[in-house]
Amino acid sequence: MSSIFTKIINGEISSYKVAEDTDFFAFLDINPNTKGHTLVVPKKEIDKIFDLEEESYLALMRFSRKVALAIEKSIECKRVGISVIGLEVPHVHVHLIPLNRMKDASFSSKVNFTPQEFKEIAEKIAANF
Amino acid sequence: MSSIFTKIINGEISSYKVAEDTDFFAFLDINPNTKGHTLVVPKKEIDKIFDLEEESYLALMRFSRKVALAIEKSIECKRVGISVIGLEVPHVHVHLIPLNRMKDASFSSKVNFTPQEFKEIAEKIAANF
Repeated sequence: MSSIFTKIINGEISSYKVAEDTDFFAFLDINPNTKGHTLVVPKKEIDKIFDLEEESYLALMRFSRKVALAIEKSIECKRVGISVIGLEVPHVHVHLIPLNRMKDASFSSKVNFTPQEFKEIAEKIAANF
Repeated sequence: MSSIFTKIINGEISSYKVAEDTDFFAFLDINPNTKGHTLVVPKKEIDKIFDLEEESYLALMRFSRKVALAIEKSIECKRVGISVIGLEVPHVHVHLIPLNRMKDASFSSKVNFTPQEFKEIAEKIAANF
């Protein structure tokens, strides 16, 4: 069965897309820690990040950096943090999270946006990508 | 003034070293989320990870992957997670954290070890590097 992220990449589940290339797809986390919280996933469904070959792993990190720089241009924050956990969805995903406080990195406090707000955030980041 | 990590790299502050090359230094986090929690830092003192040039950033992530694979061989865990926050020490550091539960990634629960235990953990990871 396809992972939820594969369904998002294939458009079976809608998402607020931020960026895409041949191998990677970036979209807003729908349950974000902070405004602009984005997920970057490889289109190839692999469970663990360190199971990726070095070349694929570095390509993912290169793409994630480009997305992070676009987030920094779009969202007011002290810096963009990185988090890779992966215990909940068995498909590699890099969290890029605009941070202002330690708590923003903890996944314990969440923020909400309307569909229109999500759309505008994604469009702004996409325009800076 | 040098950051605490520069002092660790220079040996002014002692640490449990895990790996080192010309550009990077890896050592155990002294206030770990879990057993084997390691920090990877570039020897060059830069505040934010996304201020690194692409090449330096990718070299850091390549070195971090090698350390993570050594941690996976050394410490029982479901996977090794990545976290880059950086709000507290203005010197880029990549957290590599052996994970079994979501909580292990949250920096809210901590574990303790004796100096001898830290030494043995570091030596085991170093041997697998």
